[in-house]
Amino acid sequence: MDYEARLQRARTALVEKRLDALVVTHLPNIRYLCGFSGSAGVLVVSGRSCVFFTDGRYTEQAHQEVRAATIRIRKGKSTLAAATGWLGHQASLRRIGIDGLHLTIAERNVLAKSLPRGAKLVEAPPLIEQLRMVKDIDEVAEIRAACHLGVELFKRVVKVVRPGVRESELAGALEFEARTADVDQMAFPTIVAAGPRSALPHGRASGAPVPPQGFVMFDFGVILAGYCSDMTRTVHVGRAQTEAARVYEAVKEAQQAALERVKPGVAVGDVDRAARKLLQNSNLGRFFTHSTGHGLGLEIHEAPRVAAGQDEPLRPGMVITIEPGVYLPGRYGVRIEDTVVVTETGCEVLTPCSKQFVTI
Amino acid sequence: MDYEARLQRARTALVEKRLDALVVTHLPNIRYLCGFSGSAGVLVVSGRSCVFFTDGRYTEQAHQEVRAATIRIRKGKSTLAAATGWLGHQASLRRIGIDGLHLTIAERNVLAKSLPRGAKLVEAPPLIEQLRMVKDIDEVAEIRAACHLGVELFKRVVKVVRPGVRESELAGALEFEARTADVDQMAFPTIVAAGPRSALPHGRASGAPVPPQGFVMFDFGVILAGYCSDMTRTVHVGRAQTEAARVYEAVKEAQQAALERVKPGVAVGDVDRAARKLLQNSNLGRFFTHSTGHGLGLEIHEAPRVAAGQDEPLRPGMVITIEPGVYLPGRYGVRIEDTVVVTETGCEVLTPCSKQFVTI
Repeated sequence: MDYEARLQRARTALVEKRLDALVVTHLPNIRYLCGFSGSAGVLVVSGRSCVFFTDGRYTEQAHQEVRAATIRIRKGKSTLAAATGWLGHQASLRRIGIDGLHLTIAERNVLAKSLPRGAKLVEAPPLIEQLRMVKDIDEVAEIRAACHLGVELFKRVVKVVRPGVRESELAGALEFEARTADVDQMAFPTIVAAGPRSALPHGRASGAPVPPQGFVMFDFGVILAGYCSDMTRTVHVGRAQTEAARVYEAVKEAQQAALERVKPGVAVGDVDRAARKLLQNSNLGRFFTHSTGHGLGLEIHEAPRVAAGQDEPLRPGMVITIEPGVYLPGRYGVRIEDTVVVTETGCEVLTPCSKQFVTI
Repeated sequence: MDYEARLQRARTALVEKRLDALVVTHLPNIRYLCGFSGSAGVLVVSGRSCVFFTDGRYTEQAHQEVRAATIRIRKGKSTLAAATGWLGHQASLRRIGIDGLHLTIAERNVLAKSLPRGAKLVEAPPLIEQLRMVKDIDEVAEIRAACHLGVELFKRVVKVVRPGVRESELAGALEFEARTADVDQMAFPTIVAAGPRSALPHGRASGAPVPPQGFVMFDFGVILAGYCSDMTRTVHVGRAQTEAARVYEAVKEAQQAALERVKPGVAVGDVDRAARKLLQNSNLGRFFTHSTGHGLGLEIHEAPRVAAGQDEPLRPGMVITIEPGVYLPGRYGVRIEDTVVVTETGCEVLTPCSKQFVTI
């Protein structure tokens, strides 16, 4: 990863916003800028310096991982207080940017305590998130690797789906395979939702068994080298009723329509509309209760939101999910999700895996 | 869980702080007060009402889970904006408490937009966290169940430790067993750190193999019915050098000394000091680079911090970890951790599992 190049882009953004420094507290932003993957730290970027503060638990890890920043191990006070103390001695800093989306009110109170004379805290837009929205080539490679692994894991776990197997066993089998493939963490709690539970869009795997007849929804992601994957497939156990098969096909067509809409210059809201329109045509629009997708990378949910009314234009290197779904409360649900990277002419599906209606 | 009783205690706290309402945004606090376990919601508690706001993804789940609150599903705006809109119509509310530890600057900006006439936002102390610090009997039962399960899982996984097995395989085996015991999520990324990696206090399981000779540290927790467990054991593979065995015994004695200090009325800082003093006596004090422990419950890290200088007195029902460690950079580390609940006379160890020096 080219941390120096990212730091330069961050500095350009600071100049554009007339900021002398930026206090970075959101961990994925810290990882993006300097490589630190631990759970506690503060990074202060200015035109001339880049200083990373953490605590004694991370001394070794910081020295192993951090690039493009000076490391300071704090002693006896909070990491943010240590960063604040350092800032207090930087007499040349006047406008110090803070991240209103992530900084808490209590944290701002700490930062405000010992500013240099004449300096003030300025609520900055999400500058680093905006940089992160367009992935560089190394990042796309990591996300592709994570997504391809996800596809392999799904293909293995789908073989053990049968009536009576519990959702938690299916999730456990998937996660065990992930572990042995050097995944150190799932990107979010694995969703395995069988039968009526598939009508819960976020139905985390429970002790419920797969019924003799009904849908089983898998929505899961791995984190590989810090980058997330995300995919959803919904399969059917036993013979499907005509209506269930019709709902499945409608979701599949909506997902395909949205995929076909993805190319540079198109607003993300238009991608959402493409999926929504097809489901409305099938009288299923009101059962599509969430947005069509989201960006992903170091976080499972990043900018942009692929949702109604969002006007962010797609650019090559953006990585987003396309995941329409239909949920019939108390009965069943179907969702199909791919992760894609925007290319110069359209998109590359990073989760190549059959979407044919499958009965088991 | 007795949500009504918790709501009453929250209302008492509001009266004490002269607050007319409290906006609760931190998800564990929401779960504690009304039972909702999803990932998006806002709860507004006042003397007369308790209203829970969430989005369309959670309609079914909210109706299944939420107790002691009215449910409102927001449409077309953010959940916080929906709560703000509702607050704007509550003319009787003057002092509206917000949670400075968790509310971001951007969220406060949203809340400030449409307050009722004459109302203002007041930065409240962590009222709900203070309630949560002392667990009720149902919570202790859940944490005990989670911790006992953790002990069982460790006993199973330790049997497969041998040179050449990768850390990730050990973590995967442990997590698979957890899944089949109906755990839906680990409490934090599982730490399995072998050989020199045991010197990383937070050494998440990697692809590194267990060496022919050296320590293997396991630090892991499960979430069962929403409640966390936490335990650490460090075992030795191959014949141990005298110094390694001596370090192990020093950590074990420090941990025991801290455990013996736990009883109602003792300041948590004194528990930290008990462990630290013994390690200083063995000239290992400077290698104990973190605090002795932390509270846990719905979150893996809760109040109180069991750290130097903390004067919170222990009370029956508090659940804390006791986890001193020694880390020799580049060589090895040892940590031993139990979770305990404070009783009327001392404490109950919730993670009963041998701490004898084990060579495999």
